[in-house]
Amino acid sequence: MDMRESTSGAPASAALRVNGARLWDSLMQLARIGATEKGGVCRLALTELDRQARDLFVAWAKEIGCAVRIDAIGNIFARRAGTRDDLPPVTTGSHIDTQPTGGKFDGNYGVLAGLEVLRTLAEAGVMTPAPLEVAVWTNEEGSRFVPVMMGSGVFAGAFTLDHVLAQRDREGVSVRDALEAIGYAGPSAAPHPVGAYFEAHIEQGPVLEAHDTTIGVVQGALGQRWYDVSVHGMEAHAGPTPMELRRDALLVAAELIMTVNRIARDHAPHGRGTVGWVDVHPNSRNVIPGRVTLTVDLRAPDDTALTAMDSTLRAACAAAGAKAGMRIDVEQVVYFAPQPFDPALVEAVRAGAAALGLSAMDVISGAGHDAVYLARVAPAAMIFVPCKDGISHNEIEDARPEHLEAGCNVLLHAMLNAAQAMGSTTR
Amino acid sequence: MDMRESTSGAPASAALRVNGARLWDSLMQLARIGATEKGGVCRLALTELDRQARDLFVAWAKEIGCAVRIDAIGNIFARRAGTRDDLPPVTTGSHIDTQPTGGKFDGNYGVLAGLEVLRTLAEAGVMTPAPLEVAVWTNEEGSRFVPVMMGSGVFAGAFTLDHVLAQRDREGVSVRDALEAIGYAGPSAAPHPVGAYFEAHIEQGPVLEAHDTTIGVVQGALGQRWYDVSVHGMEAHAGPTPMELRRDALLVAAELIMTVNRIARDHAPHGRGTVGWVDVHPNSRNVIPGRVTLTVDLRAPDDTALTAMDSTLRAACAAAGAKAGMRIDVEQVVYFAPQPFDPALVEAVRAGAAALGLSAMDVISGAGHDAVYLARVAPAAMIFVPCKDGISHNEIEDARPEHLEAGCNVLLHAMLNAAQAMGSTTR
Repeated sequence: MDMRESTSGAPASAALRVNGARLWDSLMQLARIGATEKGGVCRLALTELDRQARDLFVAWAKEIGCAVRIDAIGNIFARRAGTRDDLPPVTTGSHIDTQPTGGKFDGNYGVLAGLEVLRTLAEAGVMTPAPLEVAVWTNEEGSRFVPVMMGSGVFAGAFTLDHVLAQRDREGVSVRDALEAIGYAGPSAAPHPVGAYFEAHIEQGPVLEAHDTTIGVVQGALGQRWYDVSVHGMEAHAGPTPMELRRDALLVAAELIMTVNRIARDHAPHGRGTVGWVDVHPNSRNVIPGRVTLTVDLRAPDDTALTAMDSTLRAACAAAGAKAGMRIDVEQVVYFAPQPFDPALVEAVRAGAAALGLSAMDVISGAGHDAVYLARVAPAAMIFVPCKDGISHNEIEDARPEHLEAGCNVLLHAMLNAAQAMGSTTR
Repeated sequence: MDMRESTSGAPASAALRVNGARLWDSLMQLARIGATEKGGVCRLALTELDRQARDLFVAWAKEIGCAVRIDAIGNIFARRAGTRDDLPPVTTGSHIDTQPTGGKFDGNYGVLAGLEVLRTLAEAGVMTPAPLEVAVWTNEEGSRFVPVMMGSGVFAGAFTLDHVLAQRDREGVSVRDALEAIGYAGPSAAPHPVGAYFEAHIEQGPVLEAHDTTIGVVQGALGQRWYDVSVHGMEAHAGPTPMELRRDALLVAAELIMTVNRIARDHAPHGRGTVGWVDVHPNSRNVIPGRVTLTVDLRAPDDTALTAMDSTLRAACAAAGAKAGMRIDVEQVVYFAPQPFDPALVEAVRAGAAALGLSAMDVISGAGHDAVYLARVAPAAMIFVPCKDGISHNEIEDARPEHLEAGCNVLLHAMLNAAQAMGSTTR
């Protein structure tokens, strides 16, 4: 089988497979930049370490003949020409910035899986009708600069370039200056059209592992509503104050914590409800809490469900406040709309897994990813692979080489099929 | 009416009343030492301000002919001789150290009410069979040095002198050095016998005000058990982790907070249950809490109830842990035994209030007071008066002059009756 003769894609390339060992080696090589003692990675966006990682990616992309372009927010696009180079590219990618105590796979896997796809095609001499592209999106994590998913957000028009360039880190350094300092401030230009966008990512959750399944066919991303809730009771001494004369803000907060859990369970299987942060005032062992502030994070796959959850939360707070005679403030601080992925691309992921004989299941992304912004401007889909114990954003984040390889093979064939399909479409 | 002729107490002194204006003036004068801008007092134990306040009390006591003695832990005893000076004294008192943001009345009222009783008797020329004594107990608040109720604790044998002298504040200054620095390190000696001990105090709670009642006839002090409880779940991302795969430590903690409340209400009217302090880890808006530590404070008037509450708490933690598949650690960190007061002295307080035509009700002390330690070595009782909104340990702590005067009159007659009764007893 000499696939170097093939120039039209699908038929001759069906037997193509990525090189799993090369993918793993690249992941481990990239992970040395910012490696932590505990086996994780600390590589905050737009730092010197980020520059080193970007330079390594750019060098690797150029080695296989890619054209590399940087945009004004520092997103990197490594482009492999198509036989019909006028077509918009089939793009994949993710990010290589990490959390302060991040792992080796979050984001990095999506970028290097894309690179491995291009390396595999280069090695096999397979040309696609549409060009292929690997994107490295700037500052997905948001650990140093907010907003999170900054690069993909600018690309998709969620934020203006000027707004994000003016953001500063805790030391007062702006995004603009940090980009220039590392040499990744490209020229300003309108975002280029993207024909299709795929993103491979570790699941960052426990579902695939719990189902002993290799490929998560991601249907979309949950919508999110985040709130700050404050319960205003009355601080008093724990000893001299009888139970019936108390106005214990923590007791009411405890009810709300249980209510948030119930709201999510009433919207099974995809509803989520989390109280992750609690502040008790004065937080003293023998003082009845006078004020408790807590965060609420509600997520659902569609806006009907999310709106219903919002209404239930507000009604529960109002009822709890009325019953306890306390003021309860509910302020929504974040809203992300639910984002379904493109049905045809989702089907391409599912078909790819099936053709490869991999176990697969439909899943939903509970977290935000660059693909969620890309879905606003292009057909998009994601491929999840398991991560150990569902743990991410942690130095002990881990994934199995065979799962990473499997996900990369799904990505390869999904991209090939999309590039082929675009070539068959009259434009 | 010339009471100066009376030397035997009760009959001729039944019409005696304290000087409420003088009591109030002395309270306001003492409150200037360490006065805060918000109208409170900051006069930590064994500081220069404490010395000034002690000196003022000693000067006032000497003005009315009291003998003043200091013991090795700095307790001050101002003694007014009796006609049978071999009898143990009828003692009253409290403390004049305050919280960092303390008020004018907590402790100070008990000391100056005792002084006002002696002033009234001196002015009226009334002699009692047993001597009368006003004690100023060192470091009741425990804000600078622990343990709390240090002076009365040493007097009652709860702590050894050497142990407390070696305690240090945050700057490393020992109790021993601080006592010497302010000139209140007296000679070491065995505690003298106390015939009866009364302590007047603001309630520091809302019960008297809620019942529009002037005098609280204190039956005793609640026993206390304090715990540290840790719930060990599993930290995970709020987005990607479905509800059924979570091990949310905060959700279990919320159940325990409600359980603590229920346990106290099941032991009405005097049972108390408080979670005052909560620590959530990692306390991040979109991370399911992996570990929650909380304090539990249980109080009850008798050990049978307190033991039952302890058992229920432990069983509830065990059940919650088993249900959630989480380890829950329960560690008891403090135990104070319930302390009933002396029935005859309690009756003397009640009778005093009735004779004076004051509204009165039986109450229980939810907090610790010097009287609780004194009750271990002498018959003891307390007199509570209302404080505004039940607020104490706060610069806005407030009390009405007529309530303070009324409580002082009850103290006067309770002490007179006790001193009379002791004089009638063959020893």
